[in-house]
Amino acid sequence: MNYGIVLRVLGNILIVESLLMLPALTIAFYMNGQDKMAFLITIIITGTIGFMMSKKASNKNNINAREGLAIVAFGWLLASLFGALPFYISGSIPKFIDAFFETVSGLTTTGSSILSNVEGLPHGALFWRSFTHWIGGMGILVFTIALLPALGIGGFQIFKAESPGPIAGKIAPRIKDTAKILYVTYFSITILHIIFLRLGGMNLFDSMLHTFGSVGTGGFGIKNNSVAFYESSYIHIVIGVFMVLSGVNFSLYYSLFKGKWKEVIQDEELKLYLTIVSVAVLLIAINLFMTSYQSIFIALRDSFFQVSSIITTTGYTTADFDMWPAFSKAILFTLMFIGGCAGSTAGGMKVIRILILIKLIKRDVAKIFHPRAFISIKNGGKTIPNETIVSINTFFALYLMIFVLSTILVSLEGLDLISASSSVAATLGNIGPGLGFVGPTRNFGEFTFASKALFSLLMLLGRLEIFTIIALVVPKDWTREV
Amino acid sequence: MNYGIVLRVLGNILIVESLLMLPALTIAFYMNGQDKMAFLITIIITGTIGFMMSKKASNKNNINAREGLAIVAFGWLLASLFGALPFYISGSIPKFIDAFFETVSGLTTTGSSILSNVEGLPHGALFWRSFTHWIGGMGILVFTIALLPALGIGGFQIFKAESPGPIAGKIAPRIKDTAKILYVTYFSITILHIIFLRLGGMNLFDSMLHTFGSVGTGGFGIKNNSVAFYESSYIHIVIGVFMVLSGVNFSLYYSLFKGKWKEVIQDEELKLYLTIVSVAVLLIAINLFMTSYQSIFIALRDSFFQVSSIITTTGYTTADFDMWPAFSKAILFTLMFIGGCAGSTAGGMKVIRILILIKLIKRDVAKIFHPRAFISIKNGGKTIPNETIVSINTFFALYLMIFVLSTILVSLEGLDLISASSSVAATLGNIGPGLGFVGPTRNFGEFTFASKALFSLLMLLGRLEIFTIIALVVPKDWTREV
Repeated sequence: MNYGIVLRVLGNILIVESLLMLPALTIAFYMNGQDKMAFLITIIITGTIGFMMSKKASNKNNINAREGLAIVAFGWLLASLFGALPFYISGSIPKFIDAFFETVSGLTTTGSSILSNVEGLPHGALFWRSFTHWIGGMGILVFTIALLPALGIGGFQIFKAESPGPIAGKIAPRIKDTAKILYVTYFSITILHIIFLRLGGMNLFDSMLHTFGSVGTGGFGIKNNSVAFYESSYIHIVIGVFMVLSGVNFSLYYSLFKGKWKEVIQDEELKLYLTIVSVAVLLIAINLFMTSYQSIFIALRDSFFQVSSIITTTGYTTADFDMWPAFSKAILFTLMFIGGCAGSTAGGMKVIRILILIKLIKRDVAKIFHPRAFISIKNGGKTIPNETIVSINTFFALYLMIFVLSTILVSLEGLDLISASSSVAATLGNIGPGLGFVGPTRNFGEFTFASKALFSLLMLLGRLEIFTIIALVVPKDWTREV
Repeated sequence: MNYGIVLRVLGNILIVESLLMLPALTIAFYMNGQDKMAFLITIIITGTIGFMMSKKASNKNNINAREGLAIVAFGWLLASLFGALPFYISGSIPKFIDAFFETVSGLTTTGSSILSNVEGLPHGALFWRSFTHWIGGMGILVFTIALLPALGIGGFQIFKAESPGPIAGKIAPRIKDTAKILYVTYFSITILHIIFLRLGGMNLFDSMLHTFGSVGTGGFGIKNNSVAFYESSYIHIVIGVFMVLSGVNFSLYYSLFKGKWKEVIQDEELKLYLTIVSVAVLLIAINLFMTSYQSIFIALRDSFFQVSSIITTTGYTTADFDMWPAFSKAILFTLMFIGGCAGSTAGGMKVIRILILIKLIKRDVAKIFHPRAFISIKNGGKTIPNETIVSINTFFALYLMIFVLSTILVSLEGLDLISASSSVAATLGNIGPGLGFVGPTRNFGEFTFASKALFSLLMLLGRLEIFTIIALVVPKDWTREV
């Protein structure tokens, strides 16, 4: 591994991060909040360290796989550590592990919080907290991809490790163009979302912060009772729709823009995604209407909002779904594992993996009758290589093993199994709230230091699609023979 | 499909079943119980129908895959329906769905019960109930394998569908010999187990019934508080050890008998199985000792008993583990999914599948660094074909999907998620008791008809390794293209 080049790129990430704190700094000074000096100090520290690291001489211009992985993993870690400083220095979050947890949760677009009184945060910190979702949504490192070619460094390894989902669909032949298209789409959806919220009467500050949370599929609430604060059904529906849109593969928006309707309509992952959303919304709405809700419209509205929030791994809430009947909770718990589409800002296992698993199950049944038949698995008309299939399966198994082992560890805190398992599912899937102890009206503040550190790790693992981090920590000889 | 041959074999299964009821009939008459006429009537009905079916003319002597699958699936179904008659006719179990549930639970060696007062059963019915475990343990149809060649019918398809686990290790070149070796081993362990229990002062009737439950890894208790009834640590340890032994691949006993020590010691599945058992026993014992238990010996004893009972999917209990701390419960819940070794009487996913998944994860990590490397997955020095690997992965995915969907269905009963999910895990894994509503001191009696039917199906699915049943019910065109 060439440490020079790794340091240089990491330095650039820190510089970008310090620049991204400028809006929060401006707001803090404008509102004359207790956090203004904290942002100033953090920007100076982060910028200086970043600048020093970026000046590191290196005569190498290509990044190999191991270096790329190191950059991705340490990039997230450093960005989280420095991003936590404003909360810690300003005293808004007194314990550093809490500030770190909150920042990891922000950047990984998880949305789990340790705060019991969000409304007590100064405006600058509140803005920065939600803005980390927006940054994380597209990936800190996708920003760097636009920078890297300027530095004469090929960035493909990074992009491959970064983009969520098994298939890194190359929209445009060159990475720089890909990144640009993704930006434009991301910006357009962001602006549209803000406009729609403004039309509903929400003030600009709140509209922006909610938009960051939903297009980034993060879900940090800026009110103590999240989106339930707003009584307007219009706002619930707007946020619900934009969450669903943010869970769609972004390259489909480009196809749409190019007028390739057919490609979008025929996309199997999109079809399955929308089917799952519709079925879940209907089943939960019926269940709610038959148990506690008086109005079918309110049942549908709350069900739609919560389903889109959970499947896209956003985590906004308009109702305390922990109090919903077991049937509804079981469906939501299942959605936590599915997640959004590949190539979106959502977390979870991704719908494409579920799609391929279903096809594999069909194939295995077919093979019982035609043991000698060769049946290939296709997606979008193209055969998926056997290697990719095995990888998807292995990902699935690894995801569940990490889920199980973490649940066993967290259960040492002495809470019930649903709280333990859903807190793990909520962080590993980058969702935010879980059930029971970490339900919509509760938070992660009361966990021990060890559990908070574990949850932070799980959020990063979830965001980095697991293998990136695993590959960095395993002993070298694992990679030689199995 | 040739229905004639299917009917003929199913008829033979019923004849065998009626003969297997003779010991229970003898006991019922000897004790002059209320169940004596019920057994007499059932034996006459079952034997007669079986005889009529077996006389079905068929000019075909080979069984193809579809016919084999039909025999296995309908064989279990018919055996359960007729096996339920003594309970129903004698009035020991007033509702037929309950009697059916109890028999499916017995034959599939699950051990889930709808009875709240087991001790109220007449002796004949109590014997038959436990005896179904012993019959199921080796498989009703393995009996038929010894019969089939005499009928001039090749039985390999059946054996392949029947034997638990992905690798149907052929111990002896011919199936008849294989079956004979398995019988001898099974009988030997049974007799040894009875002797050990007798030495502990247990009476012959109880010793036999407990032995049926542990060598068959079934776990029907014959006392209202299961094995906790016996205060002797000796009895707990004997049953614990024999449960672990019954979870081992039976072909290893033959290797041992042949003096092939090396083969046994080097068996990777056995190593992983014993490692999981040891680690789980230690962790739970420490957890129990640090929370509620006064004596480390009692903590170890109870932990060992429960771990061996759950991982082998037996389901006997000596303590109300539903009251144990969350950490211990989380470990036990995980063991529910793992199950015993392939080629044993245990259920669950089987240790060999977990072993191969671990190897796959290792390989995928290695592939990040050596993308072009071809790394094969080996077991016992032999390369596992890619097809088998994909099948194992698919099995894993399907198992979990069935688990999730069933949990959602069961949660319609309105109970909590842990009760819903553990009742599904307990039946699909052929374990018996779960947590909460179906904990060690509770039973399945209070569920609705629909849930009892679903649980019966899950027990059969678990026993038949899922694909057998799936293949029978899927629409034909699924098997053509994916």
